[in-house]
Amino acid sequence: MNRGATVLDDRYPTRLSDLPALLERADPTVWDDGRVPGPLSADELAAHERDGFVTVGGLLDPAEVTAFSAELHRLATDPLVRADERTVVEKTSSEVRSIFEVHRLSRAVAELVGDERVAGRARQILGGDVYVHQSRINYKPGFGGGGFYWHSDFETWHAEDGMPAPRAVSISIALTENFAHNGCLMIMPGSHRTFVSCVGETPAEHYKQSLREQEIGTPDRDSLRMLADRYGIAMMTGPAGSATVFDANCMHGSADNITPYPRSNIFVVFNSVDNALQAPFAADRPRPEHVAARERTPVVGGSA
Amino acid sequence: MNRGATVLDDRYPTRLSDLPALLERADPTVWDDGRVPGPLSADELAAHERDGFVTVGGLLDPAEVTAFSAELHRLATDPLVRADERTVVEKTSSEVRSIFEVHRLSRAVAELVGDERVAGRARQILGGDVYVHQSRINYKPGFGGGGFYWHSDFETWHAEDGMPAPRAVSISIALTENFAHNGCLMIMPGSHRTFVSCVGETPAEHYKQSLREQEIGTPDRDSLRMLADRYGIAMMTGPAGSATVFDANCMHGSADNITPYPRSNIFVVFNSVDNALQAPFAADRPRPEHVAARERTPVVGGSA
Repeated sequence: MNRGATVLDDRYPTRLSDLPALLERADPTVWDDGRVPGPLSADELAAHERDGFVTVGGLLDPAEVTAFSAELHRLATDPLVRADERTVVEKTSSEVRSIFEVHRLSRAVAELVGDERVAGRARQILGGDVYVHQSRINYKPGFGGGGFYWHSDFETWHAEDGMPAPRAVSISIALTENFAHNGCLMIMPGSHRTFVSCVGETPAEHYKQSLREQEIGTPDRDSLRMLADRYGIAMMTGPAGSATVFDANCMHGSADNITPYPRSNIFVVFNSVDNALQAPFAADRPRPEHVAARERTPVVGGSA
Repeated sequence: MNRGATVLDDRYPTRLSDLPALLERADPTVWDDGRVPGPLSADELAAHERDGFVTVGGLLDPAEVTAFSAELHRLATDPLVRADERTVVEKTSSEVRSIFEVHRLSRAVAELVGDERVAGRARQILGGDVYVHQSRINYKPGFGGGGFYWHSDFETWHAEDGMPAPRAVSISIALTENFAHNGCLMIMPGSHRTFVSCVGETPAEHYKQSLREQEIGTPDRDSLRMLADRYGIAMMTGPAGSATVFDANCMHGSADNITPYPRSNIFVVFNSVDNALQAPFAADRPRPEHVAARERTPVVGGSA
């Protein structure tokens, strides 16, 4: 592991020592002062700057929700897709949990990703051209489907993918209703301004394990307690078709889902073309292309 | 197991066949038409009749919350209590999760149980004298403390303790704030009117396992889906000191708790003295006295 070599230019050191630390974010959240035109209002950009996320009601209309749900079902039951290494299967039930690089497996998803409603918001926040760092469809079953412990995506992307700055946003588009009780996304509003430097070393091929259940790169309890006390915890509830746009460094997680209501969403991470991946900051080698794209082809817009 | 012997008088058959069934409740929820005087208003009694639960704001005042929290801490750290068979320890972390028969281990809890604010509400709902079927203190840690899957308490008390009718209520008194995000109690409002007959046979000494994580005596997925669609899911949120009074047959459960905020409560089950335990309806032998009291000494009132 390249401990030491890049530390001098690394403003977000993590997994390099045995001491956790809270570091002030060194980069903007809304780039280029929000001057790139797009669907977000000035108030929404301000909310994103302040909270690290912004919710979008009705990003998809009901017919689109139906069509994308059918597409998800088609993909999850396609034996070729199921056998593909881009598909992650639930630990206990062997149900499909995620399908990565879904914008290359599905033309419909590819079009949605390029849509102004989606890529347009990312360009606006990140101040210019963006490319797809990661895309996936998530399926979270009911009756006990597992949650995800607290983490910052950027911590992983920085440590394992070599993403230099948190100049990336995720868009999660709900295909099912998110209730407070069925394991919805929880975000600590404002936590994107604090980088939690995590302890521990990244094991080889860590991503194969961490995509199911993450252990390394999770924040320590004292840091989480401080962040939660300072920022609180918001629950991203809303009907199918609504979306959450959130900064790469938001502290987020989800509880398990014992209700009968499964959750599924389309999840796209956009990175700025000016934030090219380097060598990983705390891992031996980069994760594979389908988890963290290194090719920076700008997304070209289609309109709604 | 005494399959068959008691089936004719058993209006709530469960764990006796391989087919689940939804049975209409054969008993009242508020007994004796709510004519026993007590702290609940007519509207609250009507809500309890309709929903199967009623919430009580500020049952304990802040000073009492502090005192009972200290008492909980004292008990959980007392080596004698920890070693007692009435204490249940968390599967993974070895933290104390529950202490049973706590009204016999703590004078303060005993007084609270007999208090008109607590026993008075139970007498009012159950139409006369009550005794303590079970009491416990629950401690649910943060940072991943486990939840409880959906179940009806009465299903267990009937099958394993021989409780003939759902003429029992539970009172859960919060010692910490219950948020939507930290694994609060979830109830399907109105579900107390439907008895879900469960499949499977009760293994010997099942309680030792089921108090940590229940598997037998849990409803099937189709029944849960029907109940949730029909009744919805309510989350019992509220500040420390608030309480939830709920019918023995409510379908309820809780998610896990990844937040930093632990939850603890005092939990008392009152049974009507006219609803004496019989032989278990679907188990070889009754559970021990500290989990399900067979001695029916009526609770005598103290006032607030």
